[in-house]
Amino acid sequence: MIYDLVIVGLGPAGVSAAIYAKRAGLKVVCLEKAMVGGYLNYIDRIDNYVGLYGISGPDFAFKLYDTLKEMNVEVKNTEVISINVGEIKEVITKDEKIMCKNIILATGRSPRKLGVEQEEKFYGKGVSHCALCDGAFYKGKNVAVVGGGNSALQEALYLSNICNKVYLIHRKDNYRVGGQIVDNINSKNNIVQLLGKNVKGLVSNEDRLNGVILDDNQKIDVEGLFVYVGFEPNTKFIRSLNIVNDNGYIDVDDSFETKKIGVYAIGDIIVKDYYQISTAVSDGTIAVSNIIEKNNL
Amino acid sequence: MIYDLVIVGLGPAGVSAAIYAKRAGLKVVCLEKAMVGGYLNYIDRIDNYVGLYGISGPDFAFKLYDTLKEMNVEVKNTEVISINVGEIKEVITKDEKIMCKNIILATGRSPRKLGVEQEEKFYGKGVSHCALCDGAFYKGKNVAVVGGGNSALQEALYLSNICNKVYLIHRKDNYRVGGQIVDNINSKNNIVQLLGKNVKGLVSNEDRLNGVILDDNQKIDVEGLFVYVGFEPNTKFIRSLNIVNDNGYIDVDDSFETKKIGVYAIGDIIVKDYYQISTAVSDGTIAVSNIIEKNNL
Repeated sequence: MIYDLVIVGLGPAGVSAAIYAKRAGLKVVCLEKAMVGGYLNYIDRIDNYVGLYGISGPDFAFKLYDTLKEMNVEVKNTEVISINVGEIKEVITKDEKIMCKNIILATGRSPRKLGVEQEEKFYGKGVSHCALCDGAFYKGKNVAVVGGGNSALQEALYLSNICNKVYLIHRKDNYRVGGQIVDNINSKNNIVQLLGKNVKGLVSNEDRLNGVILDDNQKIDVEGLFVYVGFEPNTKFIRSLNIVNDNGYIDVDDSFETKKIGVYAIGDIIVKDYYQISTAVSDGTIAVSNIIEKNNL
Repeated sequence: MIYDLVIVGLGPAGVSAAIYAKRAGLKVVCLEKAMVGGYLNYIDRIDNYVGLYGISGPDFAFKLYDTLKEMNVEVKNTEVISINVGEIKEVITKDEKIMCKNIILATGRSPRKLGVEQEEKFYGKGVSHCALCDGAFYKGKNVAVVGGGNSALQEALYLSNICNKVYLIHRKDNYRVGGQIVDNINSKNNIVQLLGKNVKGLVSNEDRLNGVILDDNQKIDVEGLFVYVGFEPNTKFIRSLNIVNDNGYIDVDDSFETKKIGVYAIGDIIVKDYYQISTAVSDGTIAVSNIIEKNNL
């Protein structure tokens, strides 16, 4: 049995690909090592995906699970160990070897942690990794952003239009970027820059975050803490394919094909401008539509 | 009052843009001349949009309406007559003149009709304009495709993998395209090509289509009729802006900006490969995110 397509990872990108593949009549199998929905399962509330305003991440994840079941998509709960690429591709899982003509990688990425106590406990209760996703919940309130790269600064600017005050905390004395974006940060009078500082601990009121402690023992009162110390794309298992860049991301062309013919990548593991559910879902649509056209399936 | 952004058209693309703009704190107003949801209101069932498997078009449209209301987005029910472009843009509606810094055009497109009796009555009951959307409902059945362009042939191929038999009806003796795609059509033994023929009438059983009559009075038994005689992008009102190509579509760059600075276009009115709800929603996300970055909003 040689599949037309193997999809690795069942977040929004992978599920979108699965829907389009199944509806087109492709022989497709999906592999997921943990939960359908991926990182959605850790998001408190989603307000920016058209059609599902205000849904919780786990509820969204369940809808994905349900769709796959209703459409009778073949799903295997297993981990991919490695991939061999040739005319026919081999996907080596913990349990078996799966043969296929095309592969879509959709394994997402995980936000890097600050590494302070109770950090995970406050996910969705004050600690976030996405201003575009959660910023609106902190309208008129004080928040902190941790990080010194482009994302951290971008998101601090974004939050400064919504929140009362934004503390921008970076461990070094200089940001990792310069130019216009730093000028923009300097011009915002509700952004307080705290350079050369680290977050040492979190403070809470009942079960919600209400402050952070810096390494100089200063306490800052904030209801939200946006952590931008980077992401870790889940691409370690395909390092040997030579399609992963130094940051762990994958470059793709307009059809979402990598430089290996028949190997596609979509969603949060690729090099792109906006890592959103909507863009991930679109990636899945376009990748499969291209696979169908290119392979005359 | 000068708005940061005016969005024209409230289908999935426009609503996605509205959500991102409102959440980012932009001064935004949306203009819709008819119903929120646009063409969604004419779609029987949608199976290919992640998270809302099996939803009806009107139910989807209502979710969009509801989201705008819950988010307190300013919506005006009015028609745009023309747009004047300068540093500050003027959107001239039937009722007033609205000033803004950026415009997103999201007015969609309407499928061209065959022009036979009862055609509209059978929308969603046998007559469709989207194989990618509706093809799966005709699994194992006989269908017809009308048209001779790339879309018609592409969709006939797509349907040939799902349906029992596909009649491909084209009014001329040659297709409007050649090469590989025509070879592919010829190689499919469940595609019956009927060249130099027109559809003259529709036949029904109770309230569903069950056949078509050709102009040689031949009757063909089909449960689905996919009409691909082109679309009409709703761009007439902006012809004077000089951003609309000969086919009525708008060229945009990677940020969805047209060649007029500050004028963006998204969804079904732009030149793109796949006209899907998912891609429209992604367009809205990316356009607004770029507007925010470019304007330092």
